[in-house]
Amino acid sequence: MEKIKVVAFDADDTLWVNEPFFRVFEEDYFKLMSPYMEKEELKDKLFHLVIKNLPMYGYGTRGLSLSMIEGAHLFSNGKVKASEIAQILDFGKRMLNNPIELLEGVVETLENLQSKGYRLVVATKGDLLEQERKIEKSGLDKYFHHTEIVSEKKETEYKKLLSHLDIEPHEFLMVGNSLKSDIVPVLNIGAHAFHVPFHSTWEHEMVDHKVEGEKFKELKSIRDVMNYL
Amino acid sequence: MEKIKVVAFDADDTLWVNEPFFRVFEEDYFKLMSPYMEKEELKDKLFHLVIKNLPMYGYGTRGLSLSMIEGAHLFSNGKVKASEIAQILDFGKRMLNNPIELLEGVVETLENLQSKGYRLVVATKGDLLEQERKIEKSGLDKYFHHTEIVSEKKETEYKKLLSHLDIEPHEFLMVGNSLKSDIVPVLNIGAHAFHVPFHSTWEHEMVDHKVEGEKFKELKSIRDVMNYL
Repeated sequence: MEKIKVVAFDADDTLWVNEPFFRVFEEDYFKLMSPYMEKEELKDKLFHLVIKNLPMYGYGTRGLSLSMIEGAHLFSNGKVKASEIAQILDFGKRMLNNPIELLEGVVETLENLQSKGYRLVVATKGDLLEQERKIEKSGLDKYFHHTEIVSEKKETEYKKLLSHLDIEPHEFLMVGNSLKSDIVPVLNIGAHAFHVPFHSTWEHEMVDHKVEGEKFKELKSIRDVMNYL
Repeated sequence: MEKIKVVAFDADDTLWVNEPFFRVFEEDYFKLMSPYMEKEELKDKLFHLVIKNLPMYGYGTRGLSLSMIEGAHLFSNGKVKASEIAQILDFGKRMLNNPIELLEGVVETLENLQSKGYRLVVATKGDLLEQERKIEKSGLDKYFHHTEIVSEKKETEYKKLLSHLDIEPHEFLMVGNSLKSDIVPVLNIGAHAFHVPFHSTWEHEMVDHKVEGEKFKELKSIRDVMNYL
């Protein structure tokens, strides 16, 4: 592992807590919409609407808020009240204003890697504005050379990132909680990838096969990154 | 002007038409909301709401759609119908799916500058997903080394951009239609800035003083960039 130059970290649920806040946002929505539809059906229909809207609305709170509002109209057969739509907007604003809860070991790990001379970057998909605000609020910006925010985390985007960073795949390590976004495409282009699972992972981020390879490690904590670098 | 290494272009209303599409989006909204409020008052109130929400919702169609929906509830005193909210979402989706109309002279200018060996980048504020889709749809991606999408175009962000590009201010030229975003902060950090006015400019982008300086040029067309490089 001596050749690694750049260590990239996913942000949400790798550096800080995100998914549980998203869950609260969703639960509040399901509760609000409960007069119009059963929770399980709502959950299923919202999931499909969000995926359908992804190319247009992308990831993040703004896109989810828009899909929830579209859903409110659809799932209530047009019966949803303006005051209920306003509540959805409030849920979204609360989500945008949530405090940043850093995950355990993050500061220690970043400090250690920085002191060892690794170039550290944040590589996250999602909403630029939202992620920039989070990085600023987190106080972690001093550790990072820069932030790469891509609309999708697929092989093409990782190749672009490497060419932008001017490094070879074997010089790149990605650390993240999503096998689908942070690990599989990175291994596929010949780079290193360490998986640090978060206790809950969005359905859309699951993969249905076992991930293996000499450039892959499954870690219990982000601290364990230090054992290999 | 022989030392310039990087030429950065603003995107909306510098490379392609944007503002008129935004105007149609707004006009449709004012028309939809006309049973609840007079146009002039709506216009004023929406403008203030958008500015208030900018730190949270940012620029672009998704943010504007969310502010319009919030406004629909506020400006109608809660009387707006779910079907009207759904129409606002449709206006926004149509906006996101508008075709790209390149401005006159853009392709010729980019080709010329590329052939002369300048490193060309897009520097735009706004919504990452939306701008990435536009660049792809425009077919201009082959001319650009990369795209810098920043949440705001202020001196700090331009300084970061220059450090990221690893160049000095006098090696950087920004070309854009907004004095406030593309010209003034760029001149303030000691870089070059060429203003190419677009026929309509958003109120928020106006400046109330005359812009001057030896690193500043006011151009009639983007083609005129070639006269100086």
